[in-house]
Amino acid sequence: MTSSPALDLQKLVALNATAGLNRLAGFEVVAAGDGNAELRMQWNDDFTQYAGYLHAGMIAALLDTACGFAAATLVGGVMASHFSMNCLKPAVGRIFVAKGTTLRAGRKQIFARAELFAESEAGERSLVATGETLMVPTGA
Amino acid sequence: MTSSPALDLQKLVALNATAGLNRLAGFEVVAAGDGNAELRMQWNDDFTQYAGYLHAGMIAALLDTACGFAAATLVGGVMASHFSMNCLKPAVGRIFVAKGTTLRAGRKQIFARAELFAESEAGERSLVATGETLMVPTGA
Amino acid sequence: MTSSPALDLQKLVALNATAGLNRLAGFEVVAAGDGNAELRMQWNDDFTQYAGYLHAGMIAALLDTACGFAAATLVGGVMASHFSMNCLKPAVGRIFVAKGTTLRAGRKQIFARAELFAESEAGERSLVATGETLMVPTGA
Amino acid sequence: MTSSPALDLQKLVALNATAGLNRLAGFEVVAAGDGNAELRMQWNDDFTQYAGYLHAGMIAALLDTACGFAAATLVGGVMASHFSMNCLKPAVGRIFVAKGTTLRAGRKQIFARAELFAESEAGERSLVATGETLMVPTGA
Repeated sequence: MTSSPALDLQKLVALNATAGLNRLAGFEVVAAGDGNAELRMQWNDDFTQYAGYLHAGMIAALLDTACGFAAATLVGGVMASHFSMNCLKPAVGRIFVAKGTTLRAGRKQIFARAELFAESEAGERSLVATGETLMVPTGA
Repeated sequence: MTSSPALDLQKLVALNATAGLNRLAGFEVVAAGDGNAELRMQWNDDFTQYAGYLHAGMIAALLDTACGFAAATLVGGVMASHFSMNCLKPAVGRIFVAKGTTLRAGRKQIFARAELFAESEAGERSLVATGETLMVPTGA
Repeated sequence: MTSSPALDLQKLVALNATAGLNRLAGFEVVAAGDGNAELRMQWNDDFTQYAGYLHAGMIAALLDTACGFAAATLVGGVMASHFSMNCLKPAVGRIFVAKGTTLRAGRKQIFARAELFAESEAGERSLVATGETLMVPTGA
Repeated sequence: MTSSPALDLQKLVALNATAGLNRLAGFEVVAAGDGNAELRMQWNDDFTQYAGYLHAGMIAALLDTACGFAAATLVGGVMASHFSMNCLKPAVGRIFVAKGTTLRAGRKQIFARAELFAESEAGERSLVATGETLMVPTGA
């Protein structure tokens, strides 16, 4: 139905490098395939909100990108039309890990959700936010 | 009921300057009061997604911050617990304007919503995204 | 591109009468046109949650239907793919009024939002919930 | 910190019976405990939207109630302040099963999410919608 090629890890690493914010914030795609994707980002003081936690916009950026890359492993390029997130705890940590998974990839719309974990200096990981994205395929 | 002081424009400008991402991306608070707030941000290639539009995370950052500052004019410091947005059109433009307005400021929860406009080189303004945030007062 | 005819008030009244829940709960379409629609529902003890307020599912039903009918005035039949709402206050009243308005009607997706007002016995109206729906046109 | 007793299956069955809509639509609580809850509802033509599928309001009612009962097993009575859902497929089936699970139960806010499955005449089960609710404890 569509000629849009699904993207594998190597292609997603390349795609990630073309996005200004992903590069600036140091997003790394560490796994991708079968409707799933995993991103990482090191702590960086430049991306905080006023209380010193990771900015809600960056939480959104990680969750939304994990959803988009998860979807791209099945359908290629996508554009988000709706995004929502729950901020369960203040987002602080040495490193952030976002895991996206596709719920349903329809011809017109793709639904995915993601979880954001913060890892402390001591290596303890806790769930700090959950999000979901509704996307349309771009055919690219 | 609460000793938390509402924040005026001057205090919000100062608060804005303490947030890493707001500084990095050049958010400017241009109006605030009576449950409303307005933010601006100039286009910057460092904040794009892979197709060259403003990154969804930055759309979220602008909408969420506009909601938070709108709420702060009534109740002081807040933390977002839920955020959602609709991306109506690709976000491209010379400048972005986010307008937040408080829907209800309860003792335990505050509801606000925001609209994001993109202004073209020619000065035409169009609505590119809408968002809403549910916040809890921090008492700060 | 689509032959799907926009629906006017008369057609929406007829459509409303074909929906089981709308009939059971007594939804009335009282205005529709130009991307907007207004619904009403009388209080009914059968539609409450455990504390005696209008059930969240009915708040959703009113908001979502107002969004859908608002969209139908522009594009004809639609199906909701995402819905969200804020419950600002307990929903109690003699009558409920839901007002939907279309934010953007694209070829693939339509965005609308709605407000739900409760009217007391004394005729005072207050905003109890806000919602938004993302829809796809069904071509019907 | 709170004297609000967590509710077990027996208490939730009783609570469910006090809610007008839950009774009218025949919601059954079939499991509850440890932050999780499961609801069932038989197909009923009175609860449809215009195309003959389960009404979005009833999808919301099932998802939101599953979230609320899941939370109640940990913190007792709650009120929803935000609810959102994705409608992945048309909701048709002989029976609907909603499974709620608590993501985080804070002192001020509780986050839960739920999945709605439709079971066909042939006994095949498919995921038709996902939802999430942000609640405040009522202390009841």
